[in-house]
Amino acid sequence: MNGTVYLVGAGPGAVDLLTLRAVRLLGQADLVLHDALVSAEVLALAGSARLLAVGKRAGRASTDQGFLNRLLVRAARQYRCVVRLKGGDPLLFGRAQEEIDACRAAGIAVEVVPGITAGFAAAAALLTSVSQRGLARSVSFVTPAVGAGMTASDDWAVAAAAADSCVVYMGKADAARVRAALLARGLAPDTPAILAESVSCRGQRTLAGTLGTLPALAAEAGDGPALLLIGAAFAKAQVDQAILEASVRSA
Amino acid sequence: MNGTVYLVGAGPGAVDLLTLRAVRLLGQADLVLHDALVSAEVLALAGSARLLAVGKRAGRASTDQGFLNRLLVRAARQYRCVVRLKGGDPLLFGRAQEEIDACRAAGIAVEVVPGITAGFAAAAALLTSVSQRGLARSVSFVTPAVGAGMTASDDWAVAAAAADSCVVYMGKADAARVRAALLARGLAPDTPAILAESVSCRGQRTLAGTLGTLPALAAEAGDGPALLLIGAAFAKAQVDQAILEASVRSA
Repeated sequence: MNGTVYLVGAGPGAVDLLTLRAVRLLGQADLVLHDALVSAEVLALAGSARLLAVGKRAGRASTDQGFLNRLLVRAARQYRCVVRLKGGDPLLFGRAQEEIDACRAAGIAVEVVPGITAGFAAAAALLTSVSQRGLARSVSFVTPAVGAGMTASDDWAVAAAAADSCVVYMGKADAARVRAALLARGLAPDTPAILAESVSCRGQRTLAGTLGTLPALAAEAGDGPALLLIGAAFAKAQVDQAILEASVRSA
Repeated sequence: MNGTVYLVGAGPGAVDLLTLRAVRLLGQADLVLHDALVSAEVLALAGSARLLAVGKRAGRASTDQGFLNRLLVRAARQYRCVVRLKGGDPLLFGRAQEEIDACRAAGIAVEVVPGITAGFAAAAALLTSVSQRGLARSVSFVTPAVGAGMTASDDWAVAAAAADSCVVYMGKADAARVRAALLARGLAPDTPAILAESVSCRGQRTLAGTLGTLPALAAEAGDGPALLLIGAAFAKAQVDQAILEASVRSA
């Protein structure tokens, strides 16, 4: 009699940006395996569940994916309700497929609960629609980050440059490379660009510039997880600190 | 003394995919201006607020955007808490920028509360990650739909074809045009494609095929709002009806 593994999106950080379904499952969980970036405030919703940090954080030691897959299967054989809690949405840049496939291959039932991805939360803080009539009918979410053992190619830049609006995940440390790749794909250096850091959390910060000044924005940013938002739609993005603080305060 | 206008994402349909923040604001709202697609179950969360349907639905009569912008401003002068409730995420294909700009130009405070966009909810139902290691590092959200008075161009197809995974919103009625535009941009006819209908709601349905069979999938689909999900990542998408029903039932 196996339990069920729920891959649950923890959203961008603010507790009240979790979905009702995520909150209910955390309350029912026997075991929560969570990414390192998930906050203590969110984990407090897990009630009596056993908590285990398995997450990765760029540049730091992380749990081996194969080990994690086996851990999920073992957990589902021991517990009724296993929550695998991932930052943002579980199905965007979260290596979810390996975990889903491992569970299904072992006959374990899996459900996925979507979460608010940081890109939309950043756009919300900036009061800026990623689509805009006559200006933006396509948005791409990309990452230049590659896992261990993979070749670093700039394929992602084709999709980034082709879309009217683009959100780059895990690109801050590679801001110079992001700029070079997008310039090489034909984006103008004066294309509006925003760096958004610690979206929806205390310490949220946004820095406005252009594709050309991206490395300077990255140098000015702090240690929090960051997104790069690029495209004409962001020309009038609202980076007024009072407004940004309101968007965090209502958390 | 003006009130605040909150642009709130209602998510893909299932009530429990609303965020805690959305639920709280609906409970506090004096007036809720909502899209036509928002369900009665979600609107029931609005408690004592006055409800006004202002939404558009493809091919049906809808509220003029300029009128709606003025209505929002007038509402904020009369009520403390005005919720503009939009399906999915308010900042993706929701004409939010016009509403934000109109409010700000009138000195009205605006906040945006992100919501689960249908694309991620569809991927969740399909147990398929839109990004996959070695297979998909970019995802684009596009729409071929254009507002009244705009020229229909196929610019969106450049971004759609360039990304490893692509989610097409409001494309079902134009499935033949979507196919032609993506084939013209170099996608292979056997590229995996899924049509997902009434995502997260009763009546949720997914149909699996390829880019080449997209018009056949559209012809087989019902009347619900639908997404097209295209790319190699969807080759093994789970369209087992029992699993799909579980993803709705947990709503």
